[in-house]
Amino acid sequence: MTVPVIVQGLGPMGLRILEGALRDPALRVLGGVDVDPDLVGRPLADLVPGAPPGLVHGCLAEAADAHPPGTVVLQAIGSRVAAVVPVLDEAAGLGLHVVSTCEELAWPYARHDGLVGCVHHAALASGVTLVATGVNPGFLMDRLVVALRSATHDVRRIRVERVQDPRPRRLPFREKVGVGLARAAWDDLAATGTFGHVGLEESARLVAAGFGWEIERFEGRLEPVQPDPDGPVLGTLQELWGETADGRRLELHFAAHSGVAASYDAIRLDGTPPISLRFDGGVFGDDATVAAVLAAARVIPRAPRGLVTVLDLPLR
Amino acid sequence: MTVPVIVQGLGPMGLRILEGALRDPALRVLGGVDVDPDLVGRPLADLVPGAPPGLVHGCLAEAADAHPPGTVVLQAIGSRVAAVVPVLDEAAGLGLHVVSTCEELAWPYARHDGLVGCVHHAALASGVTLVATGVNPGFLMDRLVVALRSATHDVRRIRVERVQDPRPRRLPFREKVGVGLARAAWDDLAATGTFGHVGLEESARLVAAGFGWEIERFEGRLEPVQPDPDGPVLGTLQELWGETADGRRLELHFAAHSGVAASYDAIRLDGTPPISLRFDGGVFGDDATVAAVLAAARVIPRAPRGLVTVLDLPLR
Repeated sequence: MTVPVIVQGLGPMGLRILEGALRDPALRVLGGVDVDPDLVGRPLADLVPGAPPGLVHGCLAEAADAHPPGTVVLQAIGSRVAAVVPVLDEAAGLGLHVVSTCEELAWPYARHDGLVGCVHHAALASGVTLVATGVNPGFLMDRLVVALRSATHDVRRIRVERVQDPRPRRLPFREKVGVGLARAAWDDLAATGTFGHVGLEESARLVAAGFGWEIERFEGRLEPVQPDPDGPVLGTLQELWGETADGRRLELHFAAHSGVAASYDAIRLDGTPPISLRFDGGVFGDDATVAAVLAAARVIPRAPRGLVTVLDLPLR
Repeated sequence: MTVPVIVQGLGPMGLRILEGALRDPALRVLGGVDVDPDLVGRPLADLVPGAPPGLVHGCLAEAADAHPPGTVVLQAIGSRVAAVVPVLDEAAGLGLHVVSTCEELAWPYARHDGLVGCVHHAALASGVTLVATGVNPGFLMDRLVVALRSATHDVRRIRVERVQDPRPRRLPFREKVGVGLARAAWDDLAATGTFGHVGLEESARLVAAGFGWEIERFEGRLEPVQPDPDGPVLGTLQELWGETADGRRLELHFAAHSGVAASYDAIRLDGTPPISLRFDGGVFGDDATVAAVLAAARVIPRAPRGLVTVLDLPLR
């Protein structure tokens, strides 16, 4: 049986998700939603060849009119919890599940506990599941790390590295890591507190929860990569680390700059046995985020209800 | 809350599992069981320092006397379904969950469907979960491969390689792959049909199920590794492959011989995006199987009931 889906947010990522969903035999695309007046009312198939007949809707309520039970909204509208809470509420009210790419929502309990508590109860009341995923946060630096507990125990140190050349990535990602900015502009953006890859703290908290580690305080740094002091910023380096009271250590390292020699992802767990794995060439984030969203949509029928995290999603 | 466990089978693997369970803060060891008359009646702590007071029991019924609800049997008694079915039945009758290292049980539906149907119903009737896991089958060549669906979609080819030097492994494993045998002895064992690594077909079927691929027929080969025709056999090479009707291909390659230059595990998925990951130095199987068993025991309270597979286990 196929899972009916509606794609919400038809920007670069939403269009990729729509294309992926159309090729996925386990899913069935019902329609698309966006708030952009230039998109609303246009045939969806104008945006992505092969899309089903129908126009782009301006809101979920319209798109979900007469939707079958179990419909899942595949949502790519923003990185911040504050931006998605209203539409999560709307979806829950309409009886729709949501798989969101919202990075902050991947582990909302630390920074947005009050805000998301209401959403959780709305989802429970409607019997729907709301979950955020993507390649990162959502998989490479968190869910996959936790999955590796099946291959090593007695883990004393976890180190995850995601190192990538951002140039092949979609524009919003390149902007988020400051590729090509002047140093002063980078500094101004960094000072806003909303710059850089969103989700490192969420990944760290997912890993800690998955390992049952209590980490009282995370420390981190956000730095520009600027080898030539007179040249532009090439991108951003972000690190986050924390320790348990008994000295077990978690380290996340995220680098996205155009000086990267070769992209890679790596996970090292100092446990019994020690394990060290590496993705040669890295995992291309835009495509992998589509895969993460589609994978979550396929398993939503068997997921627990409420606002959950990727740690709660079944494997199939 | 800790999960109470009983270790059944106190051979090399069972003792490692017992040691691991004693160090795992999420588990609580109640006792140990074996049928070996040299072990029954001995203090468990004589076998593994730090084990709780109490003697090795000869049967589950005795060990499980007054066990708390939700007790999990960690079972390492054999690779063949026929050998474990009676004790699975016994465990289910006693209301005990089981995490077994029995390789054939990892995907019992192809070769032992009739035999395990009864076990499944007994487990359902008792409200317990029976599952088989280990590093392989159970994780590296199957569950982990399926987990990677969150990072790539539209997969057209799956190739998994596990290449290892068996010499550091426990004796039963070295015997199972024929390290040091004369060629005639290797041939005789291969002709029995019960020689070599058990579980490659089970892994293949788990992967196919996890990807929703229908593979009508698997093909395979089992070969001795014997570079010097007058010398001993160094170990074994096993391969298994299959295709779907529309040409998607699954390939598993398992090599265990003393001529291996460096152990490694590798997974390649030709999808969108392509992903290629490698465990440098491989994953040391005996320790990793302990990790897989402990990880399964921790999540059993939240697993579905009945005879299930690793694909059905939650992540936490």
